[in-house]
Amino acid sequence: MRIAVINPNTTQSMTATIADAASRVANPLTAIVPITSASGPASIEGYYDEALAVPGLLVELAKAERAGADAAIIACFDDTGLDACRALAEIPVLGICEAAIAATSFIARHFTIVTTMERSRVPIEDLVHRYGMGGRCKVRAADILVLSLEDPRSNARDRLRREIGAALRDDRAEAIVLGCAGMADLANSLRAEFGVPVVDGVAAAVKQAEALVALGLRTSKRGPYASPLPKTYSGALESFAPQVILSA
Amino acid sequence: MRIAVINPNTTQSMTATIADAASRVANPLTAIVPITSASGPASIEGYYDEALAVPGLLVELAKAERAGADAAIIACFDDTGLDACRALAEIPVLGICEAAIAATSFIARHFTIVTTMERSRVPIEDLVHRYGMGGRCKVRAADILVLSLEDPRSNARDRLRREIGAALRDDRAEAIVLGCAGMADLANSLRAEFGVPVVDGVAAAVKQAEALVALGLRTSKRGPYASPLPKTYSGALESFAPQVILSA
Amino acid sequence: MRIAVINPNTTQSMTATIADAASRVANPLTAIVPITSASGPASIEGYYDEALAVPGLLVELAKAERAGADAAIIACFDDTGLDACRALAEIPVLGICEAAIAATSFIARHFTIVTTMERSRVPIEDLVHRYGMGGRCKVRAADILVLSLEDPRSNARDRLRREIGAALRDDRAEAIVLGCAGMADLANSLRAEFGVPVVDGVAAAVKQAEALVALGLRTSKRGPYASPLPKTYSGALESFAPQVILSA
Amino acid sequence: MRIAVINPNTTQSMTATIADAASRVANPLTAIVPITSASGPASIEGYYDEALAVPGLLVELAKAERAGADAAIIACFDDTGLDACRALAEIPVLGICEAAIAATSFIARHFTIVTTMERSRVPIEDLVHRYGMGGRCKVRAADILVLSLEDPRSNARDRLRREIGAALRDDRAEAIVLGCAGMADLANSLRAEFGVPVVDGVAAAVKQAEALVALGLRTSKRGPYASPLPKTYSGALESFAPQVILSA
Amino acid sequence: MRIAVINPNTTQSMTATIADAASRVANPLTAIVPITSASGPASIEGYYDEALAVPGLLVELAKAERAGADAAIIACFDDTGLDACRALAEIPVLGICEAAIAATSFIARHFTIVTTMERSRVPIEDLVHRYGMGGRCKVRAADILVLSLEDPRSNARDRLRREIGAALRDDRAEAIVLGCAGMADLANSLRAEFGVPVVDGVAAAVKQAEALVALGLRTSKRGPYASPLPKTYSGALESFAPQVILSA
Amino acid sequence: MRIAVINPNTTQSMTATIADAASRVANPLTAIVPITSASGPASIEGYYDEALAVPGLLVELAKAERAGADAAIIACFDDTGLDACRALAEIPVLGICEAAIAATSFIARHFTIVTTMERSRVPIEDLVHRYGMGGRCKVRAADILVLSLEDPRSNARDRLRREIGAALRDDRAEAIVLGCAGMADLANSLRAEFGVPVVDGVAAAVKQAEALVALGLRTSKRGPYASPLPKTYSGALESFAPQVILSA
Repeated sequence: MRIAVINPNTTQSMTATIADAASRVANPLTAIVPITSASGPASIEGYYDEALAVPGLLVELAKAERAGADAAIIACFDDTGLDACRALAEIPVLGICEAAIAATSFIARHFTIVTTMERSRVPIEDLVHRYGMGGRCKVRAADILVLSLEDPRSNARDRLRREIGAALRDDRAEAIVLGCAGMADLANSLRAEFGVPVVDGVAAAVKQAEALVALGLRTSKRGPYASPLPKTYSGALESFAPQVILSA
Repeated sequence: MRIAVINPNTTQSMTATIADAASRVANPLTAIVPITSASGPASIEGYYDEALAVPGLLVELAKAERAGADAAIIACFDDTGLDACRALAEIPVLGICEAAIAATSFIARHFTIVTTMERSRVPIEDLVHRYGMGGRCKVRAADILVLSLEDPRSNARDRLRREIGAALRDDRAEAIVLGCAGMADLANSLRAEFGVPVVDGVAAAVKQAEALVALGLRTSKRGPYASPLPKTYSGALESFAPQVILSA
Repeated sequence: MRIAVINPNTTQSMTATIADAASRVANPLTAIVPITSASGPASIEGYYDEALAVPGLLVELAKAERAGADAAIIACFDDTGLDACRALAEIPVLGICEAAIAATSFIARHFTIVTTMERSRVPIEDLVHRYGMGGRCKVRAADILVLSLEDPRSNARDRLRREIGAALRDDRAEAIVLGCAGMADLANSLRAEFGVPVVDGVAAAVKQAEALVALGLRTSKRGPYASPLPKTYSGALESFAPQVILSA
Repeated sequence: MRIAVINPNTTQSMTATIADAASRVANPLTAIVPITSASGPASIEGYYDEALAVPGLLVELAKAERAGADAAIIACFDDTGLDACRALAEIPVLGICEAAIAATSFIARHFTIVTTMERSRVPIEDLVHRYGMGGRCKVRAADILVLSLEDPRSNARDRLRREIGAALRDDRAEAIVLGCAGMADLANSLRAEFGVPVVDGVAAAVKQAEALVALGLRTSKRGPYASPLPKTYSGALESFAPQVILSA
Repeated sequence: MRIAVINPNTTQSMTATIADAASRVANPLTAIVPITSASGPASIEGYYDEALAVPGLLVELAKAERAGADAAIIACFDDTGLDACRALAEIPVLGICEAAIAATSFIARHFTIVTTMERSRVPIEDLVHRYGMGGRCKVRAADILVLSLEDPRSNARDRLRREIGAALRDDRAEAIVLGCAGMADLANSLRAEFGVPVVDGVAAAVKQAEALVALGLRTSKRGPYASPLPKTYSGALESFAPQVILSA
Repeated sequence: MRIAVINPNTTQSMTATIADAASRVANPLTAIVPITSASGPASIEGYYDEALAVPGLLVELAKAERAGADAAIIACFDDTGLDACRALAEIPVLGICEAAIAATSFIARHFTIVTTMERSRVPIEDLVHRYGMGGRCKVRAADILVLSLEDPRSNARDRLRREIGAALRDDRAEAIVLGCAGMADLANSLRAEFGVPVVDGVAAAVKQAEALVALGLRTSKRGPYASPLPKTYSGALESFAPQVILSA
């Protein structure tokens, strides 16, 4: 089984962190195929970056499907372009936020997502509501830049820890979800430190992708995820015309 | 006052229909500036087209703001890229779905949106819930192609009429919202035919835009609509880096 | 275009404040017609006052419609008697709470209404839910008497400022809505002081009223806003029989 | 124990029906005091009638409390003026819709209210949501005039029966609530005919009123039901000033 | 009228407290029949105890119905096994949580339940949502063991008082509901101390049970509360086969 | 990895069907341990059967955990006793309804569960709401007895097919969830017949269980799933005292 794990930002070092987290939990027979988007923002912090990460992501998704991937993962916690991806591809596509929430919902009644920047809090709250967990899941921001997670001299990890402490105390969280793909390497140490389940979305999505493939389930093409209709696309995005991107 | 009315698909004839509807209701001192996106799909039918209409839309929005627009309207009923637009611009930005729903909510307790294709029904239902009208507003699809609205030989208008009839009878709708910018010219004749308020989103958005400008209100930059942070954008979308697009 | 702005309490000085706010934002061709209710409470603070302001309000609404008003505004933040007004009149009728919420929803994702007395907080929360904004809009009370807003020796404005500060800090409000018609003159100075959008409902309602008239939209008489049936009214309210009040 | 059962419309024959239903279920030691409003509409059909029934209702409520009533019931299914009544009185006040819903919620998971006119359907749906039963309770209208229930030559009862049949078949209702005080005498025969629980709100409210009195519970004056503040009332409603009506 | 009040835990002293509270509010003609479960946990603290209290409760319910009870009350605040009881019995069955919430909803808009242990908080919140009061009712835990309420040397009552104070101050509660059958004797003194309505579920349930019996209402057998189908039960629970338990 | 798949009813032939479905999708290194409850009902049809299946289920769960199971599955679609199981065990416990819903939510926006008896419809709807899918998932009953699924002479499968057809046509379902563990063998043939994803909960739960174990996630013991407190259990259920069942 081949699972494409697509980092929808263009920062390769973050893809490496993501690939590590994915590989650590994959089944022996699962091949993790890490992919970095070739166009768009270096990190996704808010609605604007998110919207502009989608074209690059769709290109990689179409390529991965043609190359034989059995499932794809969007490795950014705002589940970038999830609906467009599901409409484009036949293979199942998973967001790491939705995968993390599903896994956590099986082991805790109330939990908290800790993300990076305040401006990402509301978009993630929107996802939480969309996934039906508005009454069970809170969202907090540690007020750190996404790329600072990779900088050992920053205080990003301390701030993250402080916010986890607040979630346990003030939200009565029973478990913590790490709200950024760039935190994927921290789950184990934080679990040990705080003594509660700490869930990383990349790892969760790998297991969900394996599950869907094993169950023989693919995105239903009946309804809003019907394949895009062939039509003219103009200008810089001409090559995104469905009949072009799907046969490229 | 200058209001940019941006058609996020690339079909100029549809922009003409939209511009007519906008001009008909604008104040004498309002200049309607119709704009057609230069890149992306010829019509927006479902999630995939929608996602790929956003970059072209953002380019036109940034241009319009630099050119002195006081407000901008996204003239597609799925409120394409609304959050990204609000983050990018300082001027107020309105979707035609949200504007139509707001206006209709003042004159009816329960109403129905009639849109084109079945695959657009769920995305519009998502908007209805987001705008807090899940309990008051139903969505129906007439199962017609967007561009067929412009073809007098198609049966598109008959199907639209049939669906309005069903909404009045089965949903007990008190008013009808036309769920596609390409229907903007039909509101008056349908109102006469069915004897209930029929609301076109383009016209509604023009009046809301005028209202926000007159009230001196602009998008709050406190929270999720904070201006995008300067950062590297790579590849085909390099020019979308916030520091580039905003100063272009 | 003539817009009747009806103050449903009997305090004329408050009507003057309201009329000023309304005139300041009206289009040049809009005539603002300020009206003070002739019977009922001097201020509306809680459910009891609200219920007893309705008959006087309905009298003025019927008069205004007969006198040729194109739209009417109920200038009290609890949207006094809104449903009864919509059933009685053919012209569109707007509450200032609903108008303020609609305008603010276009420029902020989360916002806070700051009203006067604690006892008005729950009625306004009811409106917020009714208008579908329960997840986006909080309500706070500054614990001041409505009429104290007009008394320069009171500390009413200081308390209001303190509560706005708390809303920005603790609710993460992106914008503030002033929750009393008597605050209409404060929006501009508070906007300057706090650096966020501050929305006054009277001004917002004027623009919404202009919008509905320009769009040719009137209250749908299909459903719960159907015109009242002719019938006997007895006792002190005999003259409110629909066939009497509508032909008076 | 004395329970005031106030018919907020002015039709005495309906009060008689209500009084019968109330007396039939009251405890031996409970005195039912039936009261007919002296001013306002002859029947309450929609928002306009409802608003204008409130002043007459408040007068009777204040009188009843002064005369020693231990609790009061508003005997109209739209729970006319419930919030204003709770603010005015110290004794507990019950609506017949809320009482019927509470009783039915203990014996059925899903049930349907069958009311009279279509224009009353939405106001009752509003109550159902307010009382937290939106997911369990549907509302249907038999499309009959309220006063036709008293006319043996009308087909009102046949229409009511037909709508109950539809509720059982199409809503899978497990129980029926009669949605008009004027139907109070029909509960027993309909229960026999349809073989499901049929609940009359007047009877339910009598038992809830007895319960609250026995439990020593009165409306909390902490919050939105705080007693009205003394203030000037002008014009025709001068005598409704709290300090006047409460000491009259 | 005979009302079975079943304590679903096996602690007889708690049954005595419950019986006292029940008898104090019962009508003169109502016979309160207190029953202690013969098998299961000594107190119900969390989901596990609750599930294992159900078989013993069902045995007592079947016995009570055969012995002629007109209604039954489950005297534990988690409304232990309520759905199974309603399916088994023909007579109406009431939980003390649902009864307390219904009574309190008539006298306050927002209120708080104060229960014993933190682990009972979430199960009671589930009930609050099920009963449609999620927006009006908060739940707090005083962090005390259920049986410590009976120990005069414990600080259980002090902790309970402290939590009530917090509810009034921080939740703006207008009334308090005591969230444990073992608190039934405290309602009156706490009401005097705090000056707000304090509601005990046992007393509330007695009055609701009397009401349902007087109204002639029994659990609808149409839908999810249909009587259990006869079938084989094996092993230790063989005697619970519907055809056995109902005819024993 | 060892996964205990516990059939909470006592019918061994159904356990065989379940074990087959589980084994078919399990990883090569996963050992499926099928278990049949030794006490309680032969099938679970409604609330009464469900409550009485819980003790036998808890016994098997405790045994399985002591015997080294890494995770447990409750193989009945009403997610029998899920909360009690999570409180008792340290290992993760999954219901087949929640697992099926999670998997389906990744491949379809709206879907329908088709279950057996009408009386099971409401309990499953309760689960759907609890899992946050009330707006996306409908429930239908084919009106068949659970055990008739095993009888080739019954028309159970025809009825099931008819209901799936209705779900696709009338609910616009994009995928179907089989709402009974006894249907586990039908998923593949129905998928082929109807051309949409058909999801079996047993298979879905096996993959979710494997996922949780691989992710190192166990039920959080912070909050409502805290381990039961040691205490006296009396009578027939004496051996369920936490200190007894956990050390047996």
